[in-house]
Amino acid sequence: MKTVEFKSVLRYSPDKMQKNIVFATDRLTTDLYCFEPGQAQRPHKHVESDKIYVVLEGTGRFTIGRTTREFKAGTSVLVPAGEEHGVINMAEERLVLFVVTAPPAPLKPENKI
Amino acid sequence: MKTVEFKSVLRYSPDKMQKNIVFATDRLTTDLYCFEPGQAQRPHKHVESDKIYVVLEGTGRFTIGRTTREFKAGTSVLVPAGEEHGVINMAEERLVLFVVTAPPAPLKPENKI
Repeated sequence: MKTVEFKSVLRYSPDKMQKNIVFATDRLTTDLYCFEPGQAQRPHKHVESDKIYVVLEGTGRFTIGRTTREFKAGTSVLVPAGEEHGVINMAEERLVLFVVTAPPAPLKPENKI
Repeated sequence: MKTVEFKSVLRYSPDKMQKNIVFATDRLTTDLYCFEPGQAQRPHKHVESDKIYVVLEGTGRFTIGRTTREFKAGTSVLVPAGEEHGVINMAEERLVLFVVTAPPAPLKPENKI
């Protein structure tokens, strides 16, 4: 049985937000994104993958398309394929997101904005 | 922006465990499974979909293939396509699971075991 305890993969860096893999299969990837205060995931998009964010700890400021809103633990955000999305931690506490991408989507240069 | 607050979709039933949809797209589904004490998701399998369980509250007894183990909040369990899986809440508190299925997999009669 393949299991992962979140506390075993949570890693932060003073340099930038960390993407910590939970599971990666041919059909989906799940990660824990860990942000120190002030860190961000730059806006980008995936042409053929949907993404789901779940806020586990802290407060994230999400920009999806042209809309920006803040969400705390217990909220899930959908990013349909092709839509620009980014996150920044504007709070004074750490931010942890559980992130699902299906199908898996390596970030290609042409998808950066 | 499409968002869902988990507390707005959590529903329990005295009759059976409840699958509460969070997001459903062509590429994945995410649900909150809510179990009262003693309730179960019967063993079944999906031939072409991977599933990820995340324990959010309570303790779940998972059977994946021939292995049975219990997990508390903060643990994620992978069910590769084709593997039999089921969950039962043997604890005295409620159990809440965040569940990802990719690609979406309606349960077909031939997949029941």
